[in-house]
Amino acid sequence: MTHPLVPSDRVEAAPVYSRDGAKIGTIERLMLEKATGTVAYAVVKSGGFLAERHHYPVPWSALKYNVARRAYEMDLTVEDLRSGPSELDGETFDWGDRSRTYRHPQYWTV
Amino acid sequence: MTHPLVPSDRVEAAPVYSRDGAKIGTIERLMLEKATGTVAYAVVKSGGFLAERHHYPVPWSALKYNVARRAYEMDLTVEDLRSGPSELDGETFDWGDRSRTYRHPQYWTV
Repeated sequence: MTHPLVPSDRVEAAPVYSRDGAKIGTIERLMLEKATGTVAYAVVKSGGFLAERHHYPVPWSALKYNVARRAYEMDLTVEDLRSGPSELDGETFDWGDRSRTYRHPQYWTV
Repeated sequence: MTHPLVPSDRVEAAPVYSRDGAKIGTIERLMLEKATGTVAYAVVKSGGFLAERHHYPVPWSALKYNVARRAYEMDLTVEDLRSGPSELDGETFDWGDRSRTYRHPQYWTV
């Protein structure tokens, strides 16, 4: 039996795999709508030790958890993600700064 | 201007104050409904260094963020929380174990 709930700190840092089996990266955080307490999107961090890191907004519904793999799987490829918006590592974007408008759309769909 | 979104890792560890101004504790994590990506409740951890720690499920709507204070405020007292369900620190409850039924109600209201 699977549990209907999942703790936020368990989602964070979970690995994410693409449709073709490649590891895209890990979930970095969830962006929540303050008013409703609903996940607007997850932020998936790509890239390895020396690679350039991208931060992709991914809708919650696109992330399917595979219990055996202990990872999220997406019906998307890295190319699909790259064709959408992303934040590049090293940009001076302050995730916690509420005075700035977040440049990703709130409900981003692939 | 306040931003409509908040990152999950910013919510986690935020202080929580009661109606009478007392510090209840901090937000420990959020429990999310897998199906919808909605916060079922936040877990507020009470207690200090030597005190017994309780983990209280608190509905998202009961937590109001005070920007100046950088903390969440509740229209509840510690006594209100104590009259509801809680998990005591030291219990061998595995938050990540999906095979167990979580003993708090999913939508707990004070």
